[in-house]
Amino acid sequence: MADWQQIAGGVTAPKGYRAAGIAAGLKPSGAPDLALILSEVDAIAAGVFTTSHVRAACVDYCRQRLQAKHTARAILCNAGQANAATGAQGWADAVESAELVARELGIAPELVLVASTGVIGQRIKMDELRAGVPRLVAAASADGSDAAAQAIITTDLVTKSIALETTLDHRPVRIGGICKGSGMIHPNMATLLAFVTCDAAVAPHLWQQMVSRAADKSFNQITVDGDTSTNDSLIALANGESRTPAITEPGPEADKLEAALTEVCMHLAKSIARDGEGATCLLEVRVSGTADDAAARQIARTIAGSALFKSAVFGRDPNWGRIAAAAGRAGVPFEQENLMVRLGEFLLMENGQPLPFDRAAASNYMKQAAAGEYLKSDTVLVSVSVGNGPGTGMAWGCDLSYDYVKINAEYTT
Amino acid sequence: MADWQQIAGGVTAPKGYRAAGIAAGLKPSGAPDLALILSEVDAIAAGVFTTSHVRAACVDYCRQRLQAKHTARAILCNAGQANAATGAQGWADAVESAELVARELGIAPELVLVASTGVIGQRIKMDELRAGVPRLVAAASADGSDAAAQAIITTDLVTKSIALETTLDHRPVRIGGICKGSGMIHPNMATLLAFVTCDAAVAPHLWQQMVSRAADKSFNQITVDGDTSTNDSLIALANGESRTPAITEPGPEADKLEAALTEVCMHLAKSIARDGEGATCLLEVRVSGTADDAAARQIARTIAGSALFKSAVFGRDPNWGRIAAAAGRAGVPFEQENLMVRLGEFLLMENGQPLPFDRAAASNYMKQAAAGEYLKSDTVLVSVSVGNGPGTGMAWGCDLSYDYVKINAEYTT
Repeated sequence: MADWQQIAGGVTAPKGYRAAGIAAGLKPSGAPDLALILSEVDAIAAGVFTTSHVRAACVDYCRQRLQAKHTARAILCNAGQANAATGAQGWADAVESAELVARELGIAPELVLVASTGVIGQRIKMDELRAGVPRLVAAASADGSDAAAQAIITTDLVTKSIALETTLDHRPVRIGGICKGSGMIHPNMATLLAFVTCDAAVAPHLWQQMVSRAADKSFNQITVDGDTSTNDSLIALANGESRTPAITEPGPEADKLEAALTEVCMHLAKSIARDGEGATCLLEVRVSGTADDAAARQIARTIAGSALFKSAVFGRDPNWGRIAAAAGRAGVPFEQENLMVRLGEFLLMENGQPLPFDRAAASNYMKQAAAGEYLKSDTVLVSVSVGNGPGTGMAWGCDLSYDYVKINAEYTT
Repeated sequence: MADWQQIAGGVTAPKGYRAAGIAAGLKPSGAPDLALILSEVDAIAAGVFTTSHVRAACVDYCRQRLQAKHTARAILCNAGQANAATGAQGWADAVESAELVARELGIAPELVLVASTGVIGQRIKMDELRAGVPRLVAAASADGSDAAAQAIITTDLVTKSIALETTLDHRPVRIGGICKGSGMIHPNMATLLAFVTCDAAVAPHLWQQMVSRAADKSFNQITVDGDTSTNDSLIALANGESRTPAITEPGPEADKLEAALTEVCMHLAKSIARDGEGATCLLEVRVSGTADDAAARQIARTIAGSALFKSAVFGRDPNWGRIAAAAGRAGVPFEQENLMVRLGEFLLMENGQPLPFDRAAASNYMKQAAAGEYLKSDTVLVSVSVGNGPGTGMAWGCDLSYDYVKINAEYTT
């Protein structure tokens, strides 16, 4: 059984955090567009950022900051302008954004991290930001997570939030998270942003390792259209306010915290895949039998990202050939004689050869699963095994529908 | 200027080749489904095959054959059944197919190469094949290239063929080719097959190198949907019947032959991208300024394969942000301050920053280019530079349309 329970409160569920979200006039629509997450005390901060060589100023800023100092007090996020491809001025804007928040809070600027999402090539509307920050800081409260979650989205259809409680040394510890992202729905509103808060006390290097591993199993395993943004960021704070014993080295307590952290990240990641542009269902791919977990994740990601298989899922077509072909080209060596493919409960392929199966029933499973009528889940499940190795991995995606093309072709910049 | 001229005749344009294509009853439709390419004399044979770990029997067969022996006399290709995921029986069928042709021609079985395309998981219809081979061999003629090109296609809308003539030592040398492939339009009729004939005399290792390099610049640079087949094969024969001096080492003559070979492969590759499922235009991406050609090709391929950018091309949207984002995530390091993006004649981005441009005129260029009304080309051209390095590369793709989803979602296996 899972060693945690889901609770309300998002990023303000853990002790010692406040959050806020306001409409500061950055989005042309007038929707909320400025979010803040605050820790009452200095928190250990870890981050995982886009690997793209075309990066937003905020990504370079946070990377430099976290390399120099492992603590932070605040995360400022603006929506509307991505502040990517904006050159030296974009960098200056990122620096000033952090300074504005720091001044208002009376803390050092290097304790403020920044994130942006919106149109590439556009600077942040600094006049609106300058006017908004005092109001944003004043609005920060212990139940402000939903407002923050609302202010970081762009074209997402829904906000995404989660919080879990587990125990360390028999005392409650909480982890919360919010995120945004729905595939690169608008041309350049691509960004996946995720912010995680935790009230455990963890050593900086250990926290960064946990966050990196959790990202590898969650955000790095979702694919809507294979496109990666200039602004993708995961920032995670751990402020120690739970007053549980500090975790300073690997061991059972560290494992327990990492498991809960990973669960938070997986929940957020799946919520992004489910909100993929034009998606009608969530697709979960489980792979086993590889030499290590990384290889299994790679195969899972390739299957979940195959345009052909995604189209088949949209058509509710139990197409084992597309699953096998995607597994084969994932770049992970395996003997095709060991390939097993299962769709829900249906065994489609074993020992590398197709099996007879009830095609109508398998298609019906996909219809039911996509409609959320199969075991109360809206997830189409694919399981693949490629051998006897100990590696396992999962990935999530969504189906490829007419609406994906419609959304992306008909938007005119 | 190009050092060759285009001629008629496809794979039978070079001296000493015959070809045939017949309807043998393998395809349920009754369309031609069995093709043969013959060299009058032993030809040097080279091949490039799918890197997928799920492979058809014919791929393993040809690989083994070409490792053991560098010559061949015939290529047999069937359409209808892919003979992939068919186990030991599939292997036996591949072996018997080669033997049937060898017996009919009175040559050793190891001089026959085989290729298959069609539905994964289905064995070749061997009764029909056995009955068809004698008729196929009898039909082989010096003007049989078109019949062969017709018999290797599956869901392609058009046949694909080319032949060039150049000179070596002032005497004519010819290279011809046919191919099939239009994206993985049917679920498992994925295959890209290309057969090239040449009447130059070339040393085996040199011919294999030329063929591998040509494939890297052509077939490996097209992308319709990112999916790779179990059966992808390029087989190239060089039979020496032009009676030009044998090319046994690198030098100007080898370069000249390789340039013509590369041109043949690029023409065939582009014809596949243009015939991509649901495609309304051909997309050509040219990249320069990388450290080497491989890096440039990688960036070009990533841009040409971006679902987001392909959707933008379908919408005739001059979306530089999607081009920049795809370049950034291609896995090739570069300084974003050096990024230049051009669409046709329109400079959209320079020094990593967006430039003002006439959006309506740029969109109009895309409309005209896609309609074949711009400089008599039906190609939308994207040029990207990422620095001052000497590397250059090209890739080709097509736009992502509603029809892609329709074709792939509504086909039921």
